[in-house]
Amino acid sequence: MPSYRDRVTAAYDSEHFRRQGHQLVDQLADYLSSATRGQDMPVLPWISPDEGLARFPAKFPEEPSGTLSGLMERVLSTSNHLHHPRYIGHQVTAPLPVASLCDLVSSLLNNGMAVYEMGPASSAMEHSVLRWMAGQLGLPEGSGGVLTSGGSAGNLTALLAARQARAGYDAWGGGASAGPPLTVLVPETAHYCISRSVKMMGWGAEGITPVPVDAHFRLRPEALEEARARALGAGRRPIAVVACAGSTSTGAFDPLEAVADFCERHGLWFHVDGAHGASAALSPSFRHQVKGIERADSVVWDAHKMMLMPALITAVLFREGSRSFESFAQEASYLFHGQDTRRWSDIGLRTLECTKEMMALKLYTSLSLLGTRFFADYVTATFELARRFAARIQAAPDFELALEPDCNIVCFRYAPEGVPASQLDALQTHLRERLITRGDFYLVQTTLPRGVHLRTTLIHPLTSEEDLSALLETLRRAA
Amino acid sequence: MPSYRDRVTAAYDSEHFRRQGHQLVDQLADYLSSATRGQDMPVLPWISPDEGLARFPAKFPEEPSGTLSGLMERVLSTSNHLHHPRYIGHQVTAPLPVASLCDLVSSLLNNGMAVYEMGPASSAMEHSVLRWMAGQLGLPEGSGGVLTSGGSAGNLTALLAARQARAGYDAWGGGASAGPPLTVLVPETAHYCISRSVKMMGWGAEGITPVPVDAHFRLRPEALEEARARALGAGRRPIAVVACAGSTSTGAFDPLEAVADFCERHGLWFHVDGAHGASAALSPSFRHQVKGIERADSVVWDAHKMMLMPALITAVLFREGSRSFESFAQEASYLFHGQDTRRWSDIGLRTLECTKEMMALKLYTSLSLLGTRFFADYVTATFELARRFAARIQAAPDFELALEPDCNIVCFRYAPEGVPASQLDALQTHLRERLITRGDFYLVQTTLPRGVHLRTTLIHPLTSEEDLSALLETLRRAA
Repeated sequence: MPSYRDRVTAAYDSEHFRRQGHQLVDQLADYLSSATRGQDMPVLPWISPDEGLARFPAKFPEEPSGTLSGLMERVLSTSNHLHHPRYIGHQVTAPLPVASLCDLVSSLLNNGMAVYEMGPASSAMEHSVLRWMAGQLGLPEGSGGVLTSGGSAGNLTALLAARQARAGYDAWGGGASAGPPLTVLVPETAHYCISRSVKMMGWGAEGITPVPVDAHFRLRPEALEEARARALGAGRRPIAVVACAGSTSTGAFDPLEAVADFCERHGLWFHVDGAHGASAALSPSFRHQVKGIERADSVVWDAHKMMLMPALITAVLFREGSRSFESFAQEASYLFHGQDTRRWSDIGLRTLECTKEMMALKLYTSLSLLGTRFFADYVTATFELARRFAARIQAAPDFELALEPDCNIVCFRYAPEGVPASQLDALQTHLRERLITRGDFYLVQTTLPRGVHLRTTLIHPLTSEEDLSALLETLRRAA
Repeated sequence: MPSYRDRVTAAYDSEHFRRQGHQLVDQLADYLSSATRGQDMPVLPWISPDEGLARFPAKFPEEPSGTLSGLMERVLSTSNHLHHPRYIGHQVTAPLPVASLCDLVSSLLNNGMAVYEMGPASSAMEHSVLRWMAGQLGLPEGSGGVLTSGGSAGNLTALLAARQARAGYDAWGGGASAGPPLTVLVPETAHYCISRSVKMMGWGAEGITPVPVDAHFRLRPEALEEARARALGAGRRPIAVVACAGSTSTGAFDPLEAVADFCERHGLWFHVDGAHGASAALSPSFRHQVKGIERADSVVWDAHKMMLMPALITAVLFREGSRSFESFAQEASYLFHGQDTRRWSDIGLRTLECTKEMMALKLYTSLSLLGTRFFADYVTATFELARRFAARIQAAPDFELALEPDCNIVCFRYAPEGVPASQLDALQTHLRERLITRGDFYLVQTTLPRGVHLRTTLIHPLTSEEDLSALLETLRRAA
């Protein structure tokens, strides 16, 4: 039996890594070829959670056992195949293969970045990627921020900074009881993480003041005054407005200019949850959707959605970059605001994470190698594809479009003549289950005021109009 | 000029990925070979933040440009080399190369896991890995939890569950003002993320009630009663005690049994921050360090520290697994506690993240392929190495050991005869800067009551006693 020392030496042996690595690259290349062709495999190889557990039980051998390729074969055949062009489900992308290779580098180097020394290259890349992103949004000189582990952490980070900046008292050091209770005006369509962040901060359910949306699921700016008055009447101090660009359920973009005006008028923090839709800024054809985002105090933008990156890489951008030191500050905003003596390069001062991954590497590399136009064209193409799909749905007498899509999220339902309105919800749920368990497509559903709808995100660059025609046909046949 | 469609097809082309992947594997294997030998390269190739920015500027071409290998060459030569055996700095590991390969798989598959469908294999693997970890700690049947993005997110998750369970009122829905202000008893040696979590939750600075530590930097259990009385006297309701296993600065392990007794007596939530040290449970020789951890209500355990995984992979384990639904609950604990109708397999219900990485994959695979004894032996070996290093420091007349190490963190200082006590702090800082900028070693420093000390974490499995002898010699020569 080999000694511990021998085993360790073998585990870190570069030639062993080389062999395993080459074998894995071949295995993944073959997988990628099948998945992107989308012909030989279901999108989701459906198995129940219990079957999944039986395949990957909580039992590990004491001594070495098995092969990497054998185990990865089981993983590949049990996963949701996001590279299949008929994956049109959640807003999680079919990542660029080259970006995944960057994550291999990140994971091998493991340069953690809490302090500059622990990740000199990745700290510089993060700073540069954020500057470029801020520039794309039209944020002014002096803006900046951090990359963090996902949109939920990102929105929390932004709201913590908003609290520091606008509570009017030391909410960090003094706590929630050091002043009047606070609230944020939030459209009804916002992602659940906004309300959750507020409850984590100890503001309770009243920490959210809902703002109604219009028939297009966009925040109604004329409702903001009423919402503010309602909050004040209930003894709550509104400190911020959140706008969605776009909302999770329907992809609707709130009217950012009008919200910015309202915030300016009342001295409120203006936060844009652009996790999905801030990428519209990259496209000359669709930049108008986020007009006004350049006036935001903070923006959340996920590169793992519409910038084709593997999860997670979320940018939290602040109009005043120094604000990003306040999210997790040890002192109150009014004490140190303006004293920008902190070094940009010690990124751990400004993130929820202490150690984090070299997140910027994949985006920096992809922008460098593929060029920025690639990403602009991708946004344009998927948004346009959604419009053509919506037109096709509208033209079909047996389908109903929920709304004209603002981006690449399309909600609709199958409503053929003869099916009573009372059965339409059950029909959509049945159809979705049928399609995903058979593996024809992976799509999701959402409940809108008019009932359950099918929801598709056209996020895969290889999804074609033919795939979408096939979707409508498949739904008809499955009904 | 190729069309957008041509470019996209090329970017997702499996043969292109195969070529890039093979080239990258060779490049990384060569890197790994140099780094683990540690002879041809500095540990940290020191450059200033501004130089870093000049190497990786915020400028991207509009059209395709450059090669992956060229850019990665720049990244490799600008990073901190954690695989160098003289990397003995922060508690961020030289990850197992096979675990990094798993992250390539994770990043290509991108199975996000908010809901089971989005990651069938990774959801099952996460459940199984957590069950195994809970078993190693001796937690009872019915325990469970989640994997999350780092120890800071993990401790926050645990404290949110503690708040739900023990506030005695609806802190989630009602907010911090729905009942008396809360506080947590925390040893002075705890990681900053504990105090930060409490301030994020809106409890202010008084949300932490500090508990003094002894000369060995371990929480003094007899001080708990006094701390509790102090909190109550100030009108604060203590709901939990945090214990460190071990503390960040010195690696000291708090006396968990005594803390568990205290918590039981007063009905307090018992949380163990075992980010670094919970791995002691894997080693038959050092399991005694965490005796009592099996009585914890919640434990945080980073696999990217002493389980050799690339960041991030943090387990948050709950004695009652159902508690893990309460961290981010929409209702108060007393409403749904006991109604365990939630499915374990929809992991997004219980994590800060909505989408997250396939974190479990690397740990599941490493445990399967290398066997569990490998990890047990690794913990034993590094803890023992630290003891031998400490003995060597103690035997050297010109060095001072700060304390007998509880684990693989060793704090000491160079204090040769003739240097006045008033200059010792500056000397340590000078020595550290000298060593890390020259690239001889990467180590850090910490301020203890007796002053600035050098701090080493013997986390790399290939660091030898010869390396540590060389460290002492290098410090002497650099002085």
